[in-house]
Amino acid sequence: MRKIAESTVRRLSLYLRFLEEFEAEGVETVSSEALAHRGGTTAAQVRKDLSFFGSFGKRGLGYSVPELTQALRDILGLGRRYEIVVVGAGKIGSALAQFRGFAERGFHVEWVYDSDPAKIGADWNGMTVRDVRELDADLASAPADIAILVTPADVAQPIADRLVRAGIKAILNFAPVQLAVPEDVAVKNVSMALELETLSYALRNR
Amino acid sequence: MRKIAESTVRRLSLYLRFLEEFEAEGVETVSSEALAHRGGTTAAQVRKDLSFFGSFGKRGLGYSVPELTQALRDILGLGRRYEIVVVGAGKIGSALAQFRGFAERGFHVEWVYDSDPAKIGADWNGMTVRDVRELDADLASAPADIAILVTPADVAQPIADRLVRAGIKAILNFAPVQLAVPEDVAVKNVSMALELETLSYALRNR
Repeated sequence: MRKIAESTVRRLSLYLRFLEEFEAEGVETVSSEALAHRGGTTAAQVRKDLSFFGSFGKRGLGYSVPELTQALRDILGLGRRYEIVVVGAGKIGSALAQFRGFAERGFHVEWVYDSDPAKIGADWNGMTVRDVRELDADLASAPADIAILVTPADVAQPIADRLVRAGIKAILNFAPVQLAVPEDVAVKNVSMALELETLSYALRNR
Repeated sequence: MRKIAESTVRRLSLYLRFLEEFEAEGVETVSSEALAHRGGTTAAQVRKDLSFFGSFGKRGLGYSVPELTQALRDILGLGRRYEIVVVGAGKIGSALAQFRGFAERGFHVEWVYDSDPAKIGADWNGMTVRDVRELDADLASAPADIAILVTPADVAQPIADRLVRAGIKAILNFAPVQLAVPEDVAVKNVSMALELETLSYALRNR
């Protein structure tokens, strides 16, 4: 499959959300214009985004909501269960580990790790914070699909190395550092400060 | 100024981070290749991104680290103080309100609001959770620059309407809903589930 830009993948996620709302409302077909309107983009962009993945919809009739919903779930790799480990039990790690919006989409946080004795053993809604020294052995006996890395910057790379050795192929990285990983490991960096800077930029350049 | 794509603004934020690291290490000049390498992009992209904002660097000599650092801070609207209100004192709201990485970049969370009597009055590292009914009066007496919206979906739009009426021009929205706001208000949507979906997509399409 050709390489698809991340901005395209993000729009597919947004379209899927709108389609799920339409489905819940009993809407059976939807135009590219309606999808575009809800996604803040253009009908041409919607058609182009979808064209990477096949032929959807009928000219003049629009898209079948259930069919396109299912197709987007398949494309995005949803419709299966993902096992997730969270490394770093600080405030953001705690919030993410207990975030209900993940399980709804098939993302299940199984384990949370920290090195702080004050946090190890803590119970969060039935989830126990484990000693990060157990990470490698745990992943050897119960592999996970995705790791969420919420550690301080200075330990992020060594932890990432251990995750990669344990077979993790996808990392959501909140640590403010560029991780070096093999080519077959996907890393998505998230920075709340960077999100705010898109707004300070907007305020500055109005 | 011409309209700049958000992806460009995000790369500028990344370049700024690398420049700050170079500055801390005492590096005085940097090439577009080095910036590109750290940002996972190409030297041509670095030059193109910067060219929107003026003429930086000298051919064969690269960029002056302190000059480009200052220029990017100006472009991104940093180097001033932003007052922030957080609406929604759940786990994510709590983590964001207490996130140290914000203040380092000039983003100061002044107030946190909730409607839950069990949360109102709670003290978080010296910050008190206030009744959301006080929001409008508080903003009238002490205007804020940016609001972080971390409420349930069903109350996000009415709260956004109140924020806009109170003069807020930038909203970081974690609620899973498309906010309708006037054209002069910037909204940046953040979804942790959507970030994970860029990874499930990567795992599915390897």
